[in-house]
Amino acid sequence: MPRPTLAQIAKTAGVSVSTVSKVLNDRTDVSQDTRAKVDSALREHRYVRRGIPAEGPTVRTVDLVMSGLDGSWPASVASGMEAAAYEVGVHVVVSVARTSAPLGRHRGPDWVDRIIERGSAGVVLGLIEPTEDQLTRLRRARVPCVVIDPLSDPSPDVMSVGTTNWTGAYEGTAHLLELGHRRIGLVTGPPDHLYARARLAGYRSALAAAGVEVSPELLRHGTYERASGAEQVGALLTLPEPPTALFICSDHLAIGGYEALAEAGLRVPDDVSVVGFDDLPEARWVHPALTTVRQPLKEMGRSALRTLLRLMDGEEPESRRVELATTLVVRDSTAAHRKA
Amino acid sequence: MPRPTLAQIAKTAGVSVSTVSKVLNDRTDVSQDTRAKVDSALREHRYVRRGIPAEGPTVRTVDLVMSGLDGSWPASVASGMEAAAYEVGVHVVVSVARTSAPLGRHRGPDWVDRIIERGSAGVVLGLIEPTEDQLTRLRRARVPCVVIDPLSDPSPDVMSVGTTNWTGAYEGTAHLLELGHRRIGLVTGPPDHLYARARLAGYRSALAAAGVEVSPELLRHGTYERASGAEQVGALLTLPEPPTALFICSDHLAIGGYEALAEAGLRVPDDVSVVGFDDLPEARWVHPALTTVRQPLKEMGRSALRTLLRLMDGEEPESRRVELATTLVVRDSTAAHRKA
Repeated sequence: MPRPTLAQIAKTAGVSVSTVSKVLNDRTDVSQDTRAKVDSALREHRYVRRGIPAEGPTVRTVDLVMSGLDGSWPASVASGMEAAAYEVGVHVVVSVARTSAPLGRHRGPDWVDRIIERGSAGVVLGLIEPTEDQLTRLRRARVPCVVIDPLSDPSPDVMSVGTTNWTGAYEGTAHLLELGHRRIGLVTGPPDHLYARARLAGYRSALAAAGVEVSPELLRHGTYERASGAEQVGALLTLPEPPTALFICSDHLAIGGYEALAEAGLRVPDDVSVVGFDDLPEARWVHPALTTVRQPLKEMGRSALRTLLRLMDGEEPESRRVELATTLVVRDSTAAHRKA
Repeated sequence: MPRPTLAQIAKTAGVSVSTVSKVLNDRTDVSQDTRAKVDSALREHRYVRRGIPAEGPTVRTVDLVMSGLDGSWPASVASGMEAAAYEVGVHVVVSVARTSAPLGRHRGPDWVDRIIERGSAGVVLGLIEPTEDQLTRLRRARVPCVVIDPLSDPSPDVMSVGTTNWTGAYEGTAHLLELGHRRIGLVTGPPDHLYARARLAGYRSALAAAGVEVSPELLRHGTYERASGAEQVGALLTLPEPPTALFICSDHLAIGGYEALAEAGLRVPDDVSVVGFDDLPEARWVHPALTTVRQPLKEMGRSALRTLLRLMDGEEPESRRVELATTLVVRDSTAAHRKA
């Protein structure tokens, strides 16, 4: 079967050739409906991405290397990446980013050596930050690399897929402002983390747009663990004028915050409103269900794989950084401010 | 470096040769302490399992194929399996068990064809049931297979790693009986699922041992989804004499049960005690924290990989089925029965 032309695909999908090209290049300025139509036409024509043989003796494997595999964050990213890889016949090896000697006296290979030894065709990194040395070794072995949600400003030549942290934080904070809250506490991640900084900046901008001054005593930095959320929220509650609402930059931190609030005898949302960030399944398990800023983790996994495929094909992406849109998901943890 | 003998390992670990052999064969009759000592000695001597070259041009990859990748169940299994694979230099490809045509008109390869095409050294299956045809194709391609928590009685020649479903259910029910409950509702999975049947049998045996008759109207079968838990518990609450405690055979079903109880204005555990099964992270997120029967999912992933390695080495395991122990984790959802 000859390779279908983009014009044929475009005709079947009822769109322009440039739209087909945009979808193939994973551009963000295409509506979901249009993307679905084009995807369907690509499948109908059995379109195979450049550089990937439809059949062949060797199957390409790529790697997803993350700081850990437990929990719903890695599961969602892996799920999205695997689904996208399946569509193009690529297999995904999943592993933990081990760098030091985990096996007693025996120093095991680090993740870079492991994937190069196997002949990985490319790697997606989740919640880890490659060092310059690691990037150099990957480059020498011609293993392209895409970072999901980089912890710090990545080297200019590292591709990354993230989420609109600033906009998400802006919208989460604006939601609380619209409910009449003015003293809004913030708990975010470590100050050296890129996304923690972006979320803090979004919070600041939302307050500024509403003409509310930022009170430095309302800003707290935690880690990304539940206990840290309880600790930081506990500290905010001891203020002479405690906050009436909290914007907490991870669902796990927010759930820790719930504990501190319950301990202080405060009800959510009657006494204090809470907005989280992530929209992990946990946000729906807790009571009251958490209003949160959704990161499209599956789509991030999918987008990272698509970007990686382009690098594997020797293409040069227009942008080194892709940011997928966040969405505010309003549930039961936010309510209108009660005037004193 | 010559291959170390078991005697050398035993001397370093300060144990007998037969104990070293037990650890290598993944037997369960070795204490954790002893296992740790032997593991440490194995690493110190850089002992490499038979059939696995310490270094070599080809890296062996195995597969973990599951019904889906989202959520904490698959994440825990993958985490345990990957950690065990790292120790022996094996890589784990993770994928979803796709069998039918997921891509519109284009019929994609099923998971068996995919892993055979890549030259998988072995496969662990989670929450899926291989058909006879699939098992035959795997056998012909010499790809050994281990099933985690089989849904139904597996063929006599299929290796499986499960958990002590009967004992776990017995202990969960006994806990409620000890708290003075006599009308204990049961919600379990589909009646054709092996583990659902084993859990029902454990419940029955615990009641029988306590001299409590089983009331058929208290037994409900659901799926493994949250909404099903709400539905089945809702039905139990409409009985003329509703239960004062519930043994619910999955954490997700139990969390659905929480919703039905809240809707009926009943408090957990003051009005109704609830015991779940699984001990997923969700069990700790909900309020009140769920008392549940813990399945050692990580250890199941680890054990499945070790069993698979033995099959890959051509060994014949003593037992076709391994059952790892459950543990009752008592949290805040169970309380003493209040006499009317």
